[in-house]
Amino acid sequence: MYRIDLNSDLGESFGRYTLGLDDQIIPLVSSANIACGQHAGDPVVMRKTVGMAKDAGIAIGAHPGYPDLQGFGRRDMHLSPDEAYSYMLYQIGALQAFCSAQGVQLAHVKPHGQLYNHAAIDSELAAALAQAVRDVDPKLVLVGLANSALVDEGRKLGLVTAEEFFADRNYTDEGRLVSRNDPAALIRDEEHAIERVKNAIREGAVLSVTGKLVDLHPDTLCVHGDSPSALAFVSRIRQELEQDDIAIKAVGAE
Amino acid sequence: MYRIDLNSDLGESFGRYTLGLDDQIIPLVSSANIACGQHAGDPVVMRKTVGMAKDAGIAIGAHPGYPDLQGFGRRDMHLSPDEAYSYMLYQIGALQAFCSAQGVQLAHVKPHGQLYNHAAIDSELAAALAQAVRDVDPKLVLVGLANSALVDEGRKLGLVTAEEFFADRNYTDEGRLVSRNDPAALIRDEEHAIERVKNAIREGAVLSVTGKLVDLHPDTLCVHGDSPSALAFVSRIRQELEQDDIAIKAVGAE
Amino acid sequence: MYRIDLNSDLGESFGRYTLGLDDQIIPLVSSANIACGQHAGDPVVMRKTVGMAKDAGIAIGAHPGYPDLQGFGRRDMHLSPDEAYSYMLYQIGALQAFCSAQGVQLAHVKPHGQLYNHAAIDSELAAALAQAVRDVDPKLVLVGLANSALVDEGRKLGLVTAEEFFADRNYTDEGRLVSRNDPAALIRDEEHAIERVKNAIREGAVLSVTGKLVDLHPDTLCVHGDSPSALAFVSRIRQELEQDDIAIKAVGAE
Amino acid sequence: MYRIDLNSDLGESFGRYTLGLDDQIIPLVSSANIACGQHAGDPVVMRKTVGMAKDAGIAIGAHPGYPDLQGFGRRDMHLSPDEAYSYMLYQIGALQAFCSAQGVQLAHVKPHGQLYNHAAIDSELAAALAQAVRDVDPKLVLVGLANSALVDEGRKLGLVTAEEFFADRNYTDEGRLVSRNDPAALIRDEEHAIERVKNAIREGAVLSVTGKLVDLHPDTLCVHGDSPSALAFVSRIRQELEQDDIAIKAVGAE
Repeated sequence: MYRIDLNSDLGESFGRYTLGLDDQIIPLVSSANIACGQHAGDPVVMRKTVGMAKDAGIAIGAHPGYPDLQGFGRRDMHLSPDEAYSYMLYQIGALQAFCSAQGVQLAHVKPHGQLYNHAAIDSELAAALAQAVRDVDPKLVLVGLANSALVDEGRKLGLVTAEEFFADRNYTDEGRLVSRNDPAALIRDEEHAIERVKNAIREGAVLSVTGKLVDLHPDTLCVHGDSPSALAFVSRIRQELEQDDIAIKAVGAE
Repeated sequence: MYRIDLNSDLGESFGRYTLGLDDQIIPLVSSANIACGQHAGDPVVMRKTVGMAKDAGIAIGAHPGYPDLQGFGRRDMHLSPDEAYSYMLYQIGALQAFCSAQGVQLAHVKPHGQLYNHAAIDSELAAALAQAVRDVDPKLVLVGLANSALVDEGRKLGLVTAEEFFADRNYTDEGRLVSRNDPAALIRDEEHAIERVKNAIREGAVLSVTGKLVDLHPDTLCVHGDSPSALAFVSRIRQELEQDDIAIKAVGAE
Repeated sequence: MYRIDLNSDLGESFGRYTLGLDDQIIPLVSSANIACGQHAGDPVVMRKTVGMAKDAGIAIGAHPGYPDLQGFGRRDMHLSPDEAYSYMLYQIGALQAFCSAQGVQLAHVKPHGQLYNHAAIDSELAAALAQAVRDVDPKLVLVGLANSALVDEGRKLGLVTAEEFFADRNYTDEGRLVSRNDPAALIRDEEHAIERVKNAIREGAVLSVTGKLVDLHPDTLCVHGDSPSALAFVSRIRQELEQDDIAIKAVGAE
Repeated sequence: MYRIDLNSDLGESFGRYTLGLDDQIIPLVSSANIACGQHAGDPVVMRKTVGMAKDAGIAIGAHPGYPDLQGFGRRDMHLSPDEAYSYMLYQIGALQAFCSAQGVQLAHVKPHGQLYNHAAIDSELAAALAQAVRDVDPKLVLVGLANSALVDEGRKLGLVTAEEFFADRNYTDEGRLVSRNDPAALIRDEEHAIERVKNAIREGAVLSVTGKLVDLHPDTLCVHGDSPSALAFVSRIRQELEQDDIAIKAVGAE
């Protein structure tokens, strides 16, 4: 039977600032990526979000990012591999403590924003991130962009990796995301997007933006819960997948 | 045989800012309290300091503080018990990741600065901190001021606690520190200070500022490595204790 | 003719985090207190908010707070008078640059949150804040709680001060706010609240919680724009005041 | 008579962290670039450093940097022009308040670290920084790397600019700095370095790394006071320049 994970970035509120409809998206996904207090989130939010994910029985992952709250981890920032490695340990460890305290296991790590984007193409950075994940706990699943350097480096270290697919994005002939600067980056037709997801899961391939069939094996699909329309899309894709006998399960779950 | 732990606050550098002579104090102590990035320290410093402490074979502890780098955790700050609990988990977890990555066990937790001082007298705050320590790992030793609320609350939760003694401070009839605002707060005669340490270890008591003998059972002695004269004092106290057959060992070490 | 200023705390968004319905409250008030990047706000938000206030022709003020973004400046924090003075200069100066760049004058300063509350009762802190305002520009209006130490210290230094009134709060016999911990703190009846405002403006007095008439000369009224119901209340109070020939004008405006 | 400015980056301490021998370098230079609290410095340090520079009668400038204390403003960071403009206003305004409060004029602005380096080659960023300087006060001198985009953009806006020269660096045929990654980047012979400075001041040219004479008109020379040997070099260069009748004066000073 085919399967896919639905993951969402959660716990992005900070102090008095609220972001995301976490309570509404949690029942719709199988994995939560929880911000770790450097690009978003704070200790009180982390505690609460781990509790919500635990109650819903979904997989809990760390979502570490660049130390740039003002830029929400979305601004380019150059860290040396040693810095990147150390910031990963810091953030993963912090989230792990909230998991330990609530008697639940940390399951995966997915870098955030520009850290994720850089680690997709920069092997040295990717190797530092993968090493950090392995050094905290070799059983952690490393989530990266499908066909990325991060996934490659994780595999080299023997980590279980999860390749992430974006339903609304076009792919190049190399199986990489078409840049957002390119008008062809986005797929705006929901129907079409959902068909692509199903095909990718079943065939392990997508049609690239030039019409070529390229290898792509999605293990997890990123979905968003920051607006009612985003939530509606998640409900719909969930329903469509289940109707087609594609199980929605966290990577590694039985 | 009598024993005492010598502990020192380490890893307080931040980015380009260097603080403390960590490499020189580490060989003289049995326990390192490592800053966790909120009042001092950063992920790169934490990694390096854990490595140095591991190489020296001394006990590694987390030294969490108020989230106030500009004030070095020494400014009063009011956190709710829920906030204090969450910030403790965050910081202890972060340090624990550096320990895991280097294959060494986190041994103890000692709060820093005003967090330490408040937890000595505020039972609600103390209970939140002790709970955080227990929830991360019930085998962690909780270090607090001798005769403090923090030690009491730790015991209530079944934690192993370590009572900290200050060689250069006078004590009240209740076994608390004489306030720094009081001219009698400090003991400036080194000879006298060292005698007090030895007596406290052997007798479980000190002479208070009014001349009364009060109960005080020191498990650990705080020493500083931020100046050559401070280092010289640590060397001397170490030598004096060893001459008197008082073993210098981390709390819980065999 | 009677007059009153309506002021609101604005520019409290930060990075990706949005707070407040600034565009909707601005047309209803005569003064904007703009956050200065330490407890809320950031440089991009400051620039934009100054522009919006300028376009609306309302008075622009700095709204400095404790350097505690995570606590939104609402947590107790102890600063020395020297620290408080320096943080005030820093924040006022930062906002002033956005005013200069847009060719508009900074008109007033109102401290935020716990800094405001402490300065109402702590004369030493109040004196440091007032001195900072005078040292930046002696023509700035200093806004403080009516009958507070901050207003007193501002007057001692020769500053124009504005006494702030809260429509929905009860007052003690000393003309101070009844503590929020007291069940009698809040006035929940809108009708009654509006009558109190009008009376205070006309009579220079309010009935205290014990029924005594106490001196209170409101120059400015704090209103909020963070919810549709808050906005509706501001519209209503504005209309009621205008119907009663009470002009709504910034302090110092002609 | 020939003249040159000697400038130094000051006020880089933060909270409990001390950096630089500010009191010893101030008597040796004609301009102080004072950190503004984002990559280094804090409000208390800014206040004190402005006071020291005022007492010494040297020109006071703002030294704004990337908002990255942990990286000391030396890590690459991508800001949009709007962000860069706003952060400049924020930091320059903050420092200006300390100048106003002490009755001294802010004289110049020199960006720090990677912000300086990027603005040397990125015209869009350079234009945003120059615009910020002009919008705060068109009389401010803008300091940039000699032959840089920052100097060009400042001139386009009608600002007085100061071209900065580095005594210990080699230059390309285009009059740019040889990259630090190139072994030929540094000039290690002090004698030779001082001769280059004198020649550049007198001739308006330097010999490039390939032996070509390239245009370069130094208005100001960057010197460092972070070690006794650095201080000794500043004393020496000062003496040598004065012996050769080259006056040491801030840009714009009479």
